[in-house]
Amino acid sequence: MGGATDMVSVQAALEVVLRVAQRLPPVTVSLHHALGKVLAQDVAAPDPLPPYPASTKDGYAVVASDGPGEYPVITESRAGDDGIDVTVTSGTVAYVTTGGPIPNGADAVVQVEDTVQVESATVGPKRVRVLKQVTRGLDIRPVGCDIAKGDVVLKSGELLGAAEVGLLATVGVTSVKVYPMPKVAVLSTGDELVEPVTESLKRGQIRDSNRAMMLAAAQQQQCEVLDLGIAHDNEEEIERIFDRAFSSGIDILLTSGGVSMGDRDFVKPLLEKSGKLYFHKVCMKPGKPLTFAEILPGSTDKSSKNKILAFGLPGNPVSCMVCFHLFLVPAIRQLSGWTQPHLPRVHARLKQSIKADRVRPEFHRATVRWEFDNGTKTSGFIAESTGHQISSRLLSMKSANALLELPPTGNLIPAGTSVVAIIISDIIGFAGTTSLPSSIPAS
Amino acid sequence: MGGATDMVSVQAALEVVLRVAQRLPPVTVSLHHALGKVLAQDVAAPDPLPPYPASTKDGYAVVASDGPGEYPVITESRAGDDGIDVTVTSGTVAYVTTGGPIPNGADAVVQVEDTVQVESATVGPKRVRVLKQVTRGLDIRPVGCDIAKGDVVLKSGELLGAAEVGLLATVGVTSVKVYPMPKVAVLSTGDELVEPVTESLKRGQIRDSNRAMMLAAAQQQQCEVLDLGIAHDNEEEIERIFDRAFSSGIDILLTSGGVSMGDRDFVKPLLEKSGKLYFHKVCMKPGKPLTFAEILPGSTDKSSKNKILAFGLPGNPVSCMVCFHLFLVPAIRQLSGWTQPHLPRVHARLKQSIKADRVRPEFHRATVRWEFDNGTKTSGFIAESTGHQISSRLLSMKSANALLELPPTGNLIPAGTSVVAIIISDIIGFAGTTSLPSSIPAS
Ligand SMILES: [Mg+2]
Ligand SMILES: [Mg+2]
Repeated sequence: MGGATDMVSVQAALEVVLRVAQRLPPVTVSLHHALGKVLAQDVAAPDPLPPYPASTKDGYAVVASDGPGEYPVITESRAGDDGIDVTVTSGTVAYVTTGGPIPNGADAVVQVEDTVQVESATVGPKRVRVLKQVTRGLDIRPVGCDIAKGDVVLKSGELLGAAEVGLLATVGVTSVKVYPMPKVAVLSTGDELVEPVTESLKRGQIRDSNRAMMLAAAQQQQCEVLDLGIAHDNEEEIERIFDRAFSSGIDILLTSGGVSMGDRDFVKPLLEKSGKLYFHKVCMKPGKPLTFAEILPGSTDKSSKNKILAFGLPGNPVSCMVCFHLFLVPAIRQLSGWTQPHLPRVHARLKQSIKADRVRPEFHRATVRWEFDNGTKTSGFIAESTGHQISSRLLSMKSANALLELPPTGNLIPAGTSVVAIIISDIIGFAGTTSLPSSIPAS
Repeated sequence: MGGATDMVSVQAALEVVLRVAQRLPPVTVSLHHALGKVLAQDVAAPDPLPPYPASTKDGYAVVASDGPGEYPVITESRAGDDGIDVTVTSGTVAYVTTGGPIPNGADAVVQVEDTVQVESATVGPKRVRVLKQVTRGLDIRPVGCDIAKGDVVLKSGELLGAAEVGLLATVGVTSVKVYPMPKVAVLSTGDELVEPVTESLKRGQIRDSNRAMMLAAAQQQQCEVLDLGIAHDNEEEIERIFDRAFSSGIDILLTSGGVSMGDRDFVKPLLEKSGKLYFHKVCMKPGKPLTFAEILPGSTDKSSKNKILAFGLPGNPVSCMVCFHLFLVPAIRQLSGWTQPHLPRVHARLKQSIKADRVRPEFHRATVRWEFDNGTKTSGFIAESTGHQISSRLLSMKSANALLELPPTGNLIPAGTSVVAIIISDIIGFAGTTSLPSSIPAS
């Protein structure tokens, strides 16, 4: 009981979670709800872009071989205007604007900067002086040069950011099949917990920070969330809450606390009773008592239609948050259709030396920042520890944008050593308005 | 007209924008609406954490000097339970659980793994055999060891992520002063534009992609958005829409199109009429015709109460998106209270050679990925171009997570050269479950 033998490695635990987590069934959403989701269909262009030969400049559509000289402006072909009846013949030009169609007969555009308007006669067409010889095709985007008709512009599995939403609009797709975001329920357990709004604490009480934190973390991953409140360390109460949660259409249950060795730690036995328990101890620091189970449809009395991933997170807030990043973020991504659910890993050099644990790999909270070293001409990430790493000290998560993965050597890792940093938030680069070396030779 | 002399540099333009953009007045929001916002007050802890000496293990509170032996369990002090009347004296122990208070008199905890329960006599207290000598203070978190009473746990100017929301809950702050997110209105202009839902295009028509894209981009930055639709290239129509927008409490107006040299490009003159025009041409590729103005309160007929930043973005979708990243993201961050509004910049080595422009710095769309090179023991970012970079080709923005800042040398930049990459989306690291070198010597 409690030996290292029943601990699974982080890698093995994550593999289990990602094997159990399966893409949710696709749903069809409007363009406005597609942002941030993964596409569940290929999207092809129904027409070419541009759909007509288009000018890339404001200027005059010409017959290139005419060359410089004074010409009558026979028509205007502005963006959206038609000019369809008109043909530019040798000796004439047509006014065109950026994005507008090129009239038939013209084969180049002379930009307005290379022309002079001729003082207009009172009658007859406007006249313009072309100052420059242009080559055929200049400043014309041919039909389909950006997107050919039938081109697959987006593939199933691609994540829809703002540019991808723009591409959908371009090809006229205003309703689209995507993987939905999972619905996550969050419960805190513990007789010691009181609502954050509690002003003065009685002896033995602390405010529940995990629930607000996990709800926020799930929302940051775009999940729909369900707040299950605080449960006492009471078997019947927790079971009642679980049953209600399991029948409410959730995809993920997230609890904190109640997974230690105490005689009133009911989360693990209750998860075991409701489904299939995969692991309950992971070889990591912090986060060891992490428990993971799969609740199958119909495995409870209630009519749960979907399988539910249940994570019993430790009660310490830092353990909770570290487990969320290492396991929940990949699980959420997998459920919502990401093809690569893993967190990005980079290398970073330690700013200060850190003592590694002897038994468990440590996920040391740090702030990672890109530094350009003018002296040595090398640049790279520098990792600064967020300070004392006890798992109850949530301040060690503050401003952390990385978890340094420190192997369990028991040794002091000296400052300057390059370690693996798992990126959990926006990285910090050097500031944008300082003047930069314009080009740095490859090292 | 149109010469290089009236172009401002990207750096100068951004400085102007950030000088004009000022933090919005703080608002008070509930804890649940604080996520992602910047704190506008310092937050101090009203009580220490833990508020009582707390056990970090499930086990027995003991007098350390007693040492191994068999002891009566005089009480249980579980998390949340009181045990306040009880004192552990030499020769007795008390059951404690993780997070629970340590009874008076006890000065260490023996974890349950280092004890054996003694077969219980039918009457009298339970008895336990302590197997291990523990040192004073072992597995006890003293009062205030995580947070001392009065400690400032969060400072004005800090960004509230999930961990920070957890910290607010810990110290009992459920309503908090933050900088609000700006409200952004988005308008597309152009006679050629039709709604994305349009199935078959008439000659001279293209679907409006910029509006859906800009709305999505602003939402990704957590802004509130207002869709102003499509305006024709008609001065009165655009002016009417501007006036309505200016009086609707927006902080940022974003238009696309209508800023070229065409005779129906009305955005610039109308912005100039409504406020103070700062620049209308930026030395960058793409994005040159970017226009920026400040609309002052009361400078229009309507009752606009706040100053409005107005950005006239070019009509080409790529220019639009690049300008959004380079100017709008920092502006939005500045308005919403970020102390460092700039996008992160790193260095990346080119995967393929790229020809630089002769006149304007290019912001070349690329996918940046961290690579560990086993051969040379060097690791770093590799930048891969997204392909043909014409500003109408939105496909070049697809999957781009960086803009490579290429100085205007006119030269071919060879593959392998290290360039500055501006990170505009999540970076891609190597996968998480592959086995990694456990520690890489610093280079
Ligand atoms: Mg507990
Ligand atoms: Mg236009």
